[in-house]
Amino acid sequence: MPEPTLTTRRPVVIEWGHCDPAGIVFYPRYFEMFDAATGGLFQAALGMPKIRWTAHFGILGIPMVDTRARFHVPCAYGEEVMIESRVSAFRRSSFDVQHRLLKGETLAVEASETRVWTVRDPETGAIRSHPIPPEVIAAFAR
Amino acid sequence: MPEPTLTTRRPVVIEWGHCDPAGIVFYPRYFEMFDAATGGLFQAALGMPKIRWTAHFGILGIPMVDTRARFHVPCAYGEEVMIESRVSAFRRSSFDVQHRLLKGETLAVEASETRVWTVRDPETGAIRSHPIPPEVIAAFAR
Amino acid sequence: MPEPTLTTRRPVVIEWGHCDPAGIVFYPRYFEMFDAATGGLFQAALGMPKIRWTAHFGILGIPMVDTRARFHVPCAYGEEVMIESRVSAFRRSSFDVQHRLLKGETLAVEASETRVWTVRDPETGAIRSHPIPPEVIAAFAR
Amino acid sequence: MPEPTLTTRRPVVIEWGHCDPAGIVFYPRYFEMFDAATGGLFQAALGMPKIRWTAHFGILGIPMVDTRARFHVPCAYGEEVMIESRVSAFRRSSFDVQHRLLKGETLAVEASETRVWTVRDPETGAIRSHPIPPEVIAAFAR
Repeated sequence: MPEPTLTTRRPVVIEWGHCDPAGIVFYPRYFEMFDAATGGLFQAALGMPKIRWTAHFGILGIPMVDTRARFHVPCAYGEEVMIESRVSAFRRSSFDVQHRLLKGETLAVEASETRVWTVRDPETGAIRSHPIPPEVIAAFAR
Repeated sequence: MPEPTLTTRRPVVIEWGHCDPAGIVFYPRYFEMFDAATGGLFQAALGMPKIRWTAHFGILGIPMVDTRARFHVPCAYGEEVMIESRVSAFRRSSFDVQHRLLKGETLAVEASETRVWTVRDPETGAIRSHPIPPEVIAAFAR
Repeated sequence: MPEPTLTTRRPVVIEWGHCDPAGIVFYPRYFEMFDAATGGLFQAALGMPKIRWTAHFGILGIPMVDTRARFHVPCAYGEEVMIESRVSAFRRSSFDVQHRLLKGETLAVEASETRVWTVRDPETGAIRSHPIPPEVIAAFAR
Repeated sequence: MPEPTLTTRRPVVIEWGHCDPAGIVFYPRYFEMFDAATGGLFQAALGMPKIRWTAHFGILGIPMVDTRARFHVPCAYGEEVMIESRVSAFRRSSFDVQHRLLKGETLAVEASETRVWTVRDPETGAIRSHPIPPEVIAAFAR
């Protein structure tokens, strides 16, 4: 299986509405940013937006099963940050994503995600995992 | 057509995550509260949660077409407020909701909504308005 | 008083997290987008981000006192829209903003805002309105 | 140091606005729920809302430094769930919180948090950790 090598960089401006009474990002907002960053990573790899590649591969989505974030340095309203995102591992039907949110050279937040390639069973209607197509994995090896 | 008379009262605690760097509720959060309050109002009238009455009446939902809010007094983290909600008018396939968010006796926020009783056309798949069933209107007249 | 003529255009991608079970934008998310768009409009006029111009003019912020939105056409996950924003009127200490959210040529959402130029009284600590500086108004007339 | 034994149970209704186009809770919303649940846990222990105990103990807050959630079973719009929360460990100036989100008997989501007892240095203005007062720790041992 080819190693995923693609990394995307996504600039984000910290908006007033991201921040809490301490003037810093309310941490659930980081997860919103990371979810969009994972969408952007797949869009960069597959050459189409998530709405199209989910349809193209006949999947329901890539729901999260496990996520963790560590908050090293707070980000405040008005700051411009960069989110670096990459797939760190593909397995049969699940995969891991790593995000690094940087303020200049400083690592402010690190996050990891485990998500599952998920389909709706055409017969039972149940939601279940499905092997990740080799062409998806290949698209990240560049 | 019977006049709607039902009013619901919904207590809400202002959470840390509702508030912005000024320490007061970030105004889009009020619209989240009002959307949930309209859901609660219909649940009180129809005796079942929105997930069930939308299925029961075969509708897609009651999407917003027009909403306005006036912010008289800010609400801060930790405050306990009350949202009073009622339908002010039913028309053929649309209706108006009024919300009053109170801090004690003080009117802090007022909002109005116009929503549409909406179905998916079984033949074309298009989303369109549909007459509000008389039993729905009757359920608010008490 | 010079007429405000500046209009900003802000591209927005509709993310998965903006959308509800109907697959369209949950309407409170539009208000988050419009709040950020007003921030961007002032940044374009004043040449610095909101965090800096609020400090520069010694104000607390520009809190919303009245906002209304009309939803003409729903926006769905994956769509790319454009928000056009302008100040439609300056008054002594308050002003109006208009937003038009466009999908291609189609006007999907229109919104209006009335906000107040707000300071904290240095003696009493109370929050109150303050006359908008002429240089702010002049910065929008171009 | 006395063992923390207090557990709070917080009912939550899954609202329309919590859910995504797949009809299930958009996972960053769980972190909003857990943040409020931690606030409720401290309120139960200390007998006053967070806005008052942060002032009482002279702290800035209890910012998150590390959080992880595992999503076992999705929650859908209209469901009523219960969040069980407890402090699993107090250390000198940091502590761990565990949340279990239950649908009936089913464990739907588990989350852990590490937070820091944080003050603003009165001389330098810097944000730094501070030893957790014994009376806070004692308040959870019951």
